Amino acid sequence: MHDMLREILEQPQVVARLVENGRSLAREVARLAESHDVQQVVFAARGTSDHAAVYGQYLFQVECGIAAFLAAPSVVTVYRKPLHLPKTMVIGISQSGCAQDVMEYMSAAREQGSPVVAITNDPASELSRLADISIPLGAGVEKSVAATKTYTATLAALALIAAYMGNRTEALDDLAEAPDLMDRTIKMSAGLQRIAATSPIRSECFVVGRGLNYATALETALKIMETSYVLARGYSAADFLHGPVAAAQAVPGIIYVPHDEARDSVLEVARSLYSKGTHLTVVSSDREALGLSADAVEVPKGRSRWVDPLAQILVGQRLAYQISVARGLDPDTPRGLSKVTVTV
Amino acid sequence: MHDMLREILEQPQVVARLVENGRSLAREVARLAESHDVQQVVFAARGTSDHAAVYGQYLFQVECGIAAFLAAPSVVTVYRKPLHLPKTMVIGISQSGCAQDVMEYMSAAREQGSPVVAITNDPASELSRLADISIPLGAGVEKSVAATKTYTATLAALALIAAYMGNRTEALDDLAEAPDLMDRTIKMSAGLQRIAATSPIRSECFVVGRGLNYATALETALKIMETSYVLARGYSAADFLHGPVAAAQAVPGIIYVPHDEARDSVLEVARSLYSKGTHLTVVSSDREALGLSADAVEVPKGRSRWVDPLAQILVGQRLAYQISVARGLDPDTPRGLSKVTVTV
Repeated sequence: MHDMLREILEQPQVVARLVENGRSLAREVARLAESHDVQQVVFAARGTSDHAAVYGQYLFQVECGIAAFLAAPSVVTVYRKPLHLPKTMVIGISQSGCAQDVMEYMSAAREQGSPVVAITNDPASELSRLADISIPLGAGVEKSVAATKTYTATLAALALIAAYMGNRTEALDDLAEAPDLMDRTIKMSAGLQRIAATSPIRSECFVVGRGLNYATALETALKIMETSYVLARGYSAADFLHGPVAAAQAVPGIIYVPHDEARDSVLEVARSLYSKGTHLTVVSSDREALGLSADAVEVPKGRSRWVDPLAQILVGQRLAYQISVARGLDPDTPRGLSKVTVTV
Repeated sequence: MHDMLREILEQPQVVARLVENGRSLAREVARLAESHDVQQVVFAARGTSDHAAVYGQYLFQVECGIAAFLAAPSVVTVYRKPLHLPKTMVIGISQSGCAQDVMEYMSAAREQGSPVVAITNDPASELSRLADISIPLGAGVEKSVAATKTYTATLAALALIAAYMGNRTEALDDLAEAPDLMDRTIKMSAGLQRIAATSPIRSECFVVGRGLNYATALETALKIMETSYVLARGYSAADFLHGPVAAAQAVPGIIYVPHDEARDSVLEVARSLYSKGTHLTVVSSDREALGLSADAVEVPKGRSRWVDPLAQILVGQRLAYQISVARGLDPDTPRGLSKVTVTV
């Protein structure tokens, strides 16, 4: 079995462990934030970790009423400027703990007095030591170059922090449900092998999501790019209508239609593309949305927005894996990529 | 002459007018910010205006030491949540003044006490009336669906605000130089017609920039998508190495190599792609960078980071225009797009 597939299948266990073991550290992060009168969170991350940060950005704002933004690390790493962040906690994310630019951003944030938190799969890393509090993902070694289990573990870590910082500890019950939802999603996505084998996704595709599942669209596109050399791009349903729709209608697409408040706007994009004959793979628990799809992937309906993105990305990861295998490629060792990408 | 080309060529005049006429309003914005003890700017925008906001995000942080971030409007428009932004001024950008989601974000920001500024080409718009101060772009009616002159005018408006808010009024001299730099760029980019006619850019391409010119890459990709139905995506040189490079090397690319601190990291990406045989259109004033290109576009070297993005995007706009014409398309009326895109 490929490392990537084994790691995809490990995710329910990894998340179950983290939701259990990460609580006390997440509670400490909330205390740290309170002691610094933190009113805003800024995430520093690249690649897959940056997509996890996009989930965090929506979760903190939508569920906890805490302002949350994404850093532009090059302000520090390229232009060498100090930061001036008002009442901000910085959360640096890097599975390897080796992201040089994330570390430099964290250091600059510390220098101006911000509390700093790390989320990493290597608790002995320099990135971990830089932080006031470091949350280890405990995902075990991730061998596949395309990150999977460290992504969902990072989502779980961010959800734990949000639950405590936002005084939404009732969401911990939702999070405890995540592994079961993930298991059921894996079982329901058995048809992906057939979809991948016959998919018209060859040299390009687009992936659409919105709100909490915008991150899922971005991360699905990255997995497909990394493992199958398809130029794939993720879009928010809102941005998609500002230009990309003109170019994309002749290209196959994947669209995540959620069952939350974002449903109608995403469904509108799906309907518009369907009417133009665009080949769509719809991932949803929504009957109407699934009906618009040549390749419908039904997923179980979770009980909250907190956990849906942890389950739905399993479809994107598995689809990327199956497309790679169907093309005769090796998903574990993508051409031109290494496990640790150093950017400054 | 197509509207799009006429509007591209109008830009030096439009920017010259705005740099002259916009100063007093920009000074008022700085006073408003001071009276509210503003320590951070958040931009609300979509599409082309959002790319202008990306320039603003870097400019405010790199040149003025003011924290600056991009809003996720759907927190307000889809999820209907209140905002809690610490010591923040919100700048809403919409050329038409009709962007519903930008207006809703601005209203939510006002409700929690933030000062709110509008940048729009329609001073009589509802968006303009919503703001404490509204800066009119004064670009004249923009007929082409693909926005060009309102983009560079927005960059100029943001630069004026940054110069006053950051006490960097010496930068006003740099801005006064922008129209001349833009004129010279237009003259030097006469070769774009030939490049477009023979370009291998057909169904897909990527565009790379970084820092202040990351916005230029994003906006170039959008122009090409809008007018030529090519699935184009802009990347920061840093993110490009996290995955996209694996899929992109077989696809033609455009790369903006700046002469500021970001030069080395962008040049590294260009060299890596060059060594793999990727077809590159390099836009730069840098001899070494231009040597890596089958289709080199030399641009004049501006005297500051403040103005380079106003001139360099002219190449991207013109290239998008020429590709569209070379394909026998009508750049003024792209299929499936209208001038005003309403997203909520």
